[in-house]
Amino acid sequence: MSDKTRRFSSVAVVGAGAIGLYYGIRLALGGAGVRFLMRSDLGEVRRRDSAILRLKEGASELKPVQAFGSAAEIGPVDLVVVTLKTTSNGELGSLLPPLIGPETAILTLQNGLGADELLATLFGAERVMGGLAFIACNRTGPGEVTCFHPGSLLVGEFGRPPGERIRGLANQFEQAGVATKVADNLESARWHKLIWNVPFNGLPIVAGGVTTDRICSDPELAAEARALMEEIRGAAGRLGHTISPEFLRRQFAVTPGMGPYRPSSLIDFLEGRSVEVESIWGEPLRRAQAAGAAVPRLSLLHALLKSLDHRPKD
Amino acid sequence: MSDKTRRFSSVAVVGAGAIGLYYGIRLALGGAGVRFLMRSDLGEVRRRDSAILRLKEGASELKPVQAFGSAAEIGPVDLVVVTLKTTSNGELGSLLPPLIGPETAILTLQNGLGADELLATLFGAERVMGGLAFIACNRTGPGEVTCFHPGSLLVGEFGRPPGERIRGLANQFEQAGVATKVADNLESARWHKLIWNVPFNGLPIVAGGVTTDRICSDPELAAEARALMEEIRGAAGRLGHTISPEFLRRQFAVTPGMGPYRPSSLIDFLEGRSVEVESIWGEPLRRAQAAGAAVPRLSLLHALLKSLDHRPKD
Repeated sequence: MSDKTRRFSSVAVVGAGAIGLYYGIRLALGGAGVRFLMRSDLGEVRRRDSAILRLKEGASELKPVQAFGSAAEIGPVDLVVVTLKTTSNGELGSLLPPLIGPETAILTLQNGLGADELLATLFGAERVMGGLAFIACNRTGPGEVTCFHPGSLLVGEFGRPPGERIRGLANQFEQAGVATKVADNLESARWHKLIWNVPFNGLPIVAGGVTTDRICSDPELAAEARALMEEIRGAAGRLGHTISPEFLRRQFAVTPGMGPYRPSSLIDFLEGRSVEVESIWGEPLRRAQAAGAAVPRLSLLHALLKSLDHRPKD
Repeated sequence: MSDKTRRFSSVAVVGAGAIGLYYGIRLALGGAGVRFLMRSDLGEVRRRDSAILRLKEGASELKPVQAFGSAAEIGPVDLVVVTLKTTSNGELGSLLPPLIGPETAILTLQNGLGADELLATLFGAERVMGGLAFIACNRTGPGEVTCFHPGSLLVGEFGRPPGERIRGLANQFEQAGVATKVADNLESARWHKLIWNVPFNGLPIVAGGVTTDRICSDPELAAEARALMEEIRGAAGRLGHTISPEFLRRQFAVTPGMGPYRPSSLIDFLEGRSVEVESIWGEPLRRAQAAGAAVPRLSLLHALLKSLDHRPKD
């Protein structure tokens, strides 16, 4: 915990869903100047002038809250935390520029693959860090997030080994109450997370809106989940990311204990919102195919999810 | 057209859905004594005392109609035509015996795989013939079938090359106005039909209730349909049934011209009835796997359809 590690004093959180609220409120309560970029919830949050974090142990209120409707009002910050759904990533090129100064870093906490590369292309690879949120939380109202299991955060540099910047960020998160680890290889970490997300975010949708425990208790669906995990493992391996069979076994084994869990993608689907089809299934599929990996089940699953998710995309 | 070919004078049609009504009415109007075994439609059909066949060119009424509520009332016949949905095949062992005399033949016009073998096990392989109905027709009321495209019928002996009996049957169908061909190999014919049925009965259900033209016009779903066709072709090949790439190409090519077609499985699914999951997908999957064929997409599709079709089975 060196005093020399860089702190991000000013932070813009882009996207005030569950993830954006959770980590934004944490960082703000930890002492950073956090400004939230909001859309639909802006009026209610400003009227109340607070953001609320509910935990099992009780609630924290961030009051006053700095909430804005445009990036121009926020202006350049030390750190941009991107927590939009990836279905809105087409907007990043027009949305973020007012937040970016010469030294601004960008941390994307978005699902799946593709956001790191997109941000690197748009704003320069040297700015980009990525994070994987292992957390169970839901947005339960405007500017209000309820956390069921705080889990942990895994952060890494995009395309580089970890250095002082990412360790400073992890330290800042830790001091804000978020258990945080630094990944040696961000891309590898993302492929590891796909081992669970590809089957357990996808199969519940295409199998008729079932919870993850139903996937595990149906022998045939469970076998398909395992086969999808093996396809992802094979593709990751071809891309240089070794995933152990033991990791697969554990990822499968923890799932029944989660009970009748509805993954975020299933909730999005059932509530008529866009599903993050391309970041969780489409981009992994394209990279797997480009690497020559056999991913027939992923291919079928992606085509079905894309068909089911027939709402217009940004 | 030898006079020596056997005619089936007395026929029992088991299952009065679209297929049973169509071929039963045809055979009856062609001079056979056809008795229908019905369940839910029995009262209305008896009250009206007719069965109705609607064609583009006009309608035919079979009046009086011999409709019964139990096989015991029908008694032994020359030919039993089985047109139940395969989801009811668990009842065949208790349903058919009163219809079976020493010389009774059985013709199953049911979808997919498994019915031939089941009937052979229950009643003796020598009795069993199978048929594939290439026809577009719907049951449009109690004892009423509407035919949009009469197509053709392909019949074959179970486990034997064609002989006098099957040629006599084909002749009898021809004389009743049904274009009929005799298959050299019934099992091969069934695998050929699966080339279309596996993708185009299945994908419309799991892709969200879309018509077959939508499968063809979506590049990714179309690629999945082709890949499923290739899996079936590969499995059939391992089982000794050579299917040409040209056959696949044609099966795919005819589909867009069918317009916004709702296959029977999709109609069953959308109207809350059981889907013939095991005969169209489950049994082909098991035979393919037993033969060592790689059928990952069929495996996933079957698991999803089974999950979606969660109504109790007979």
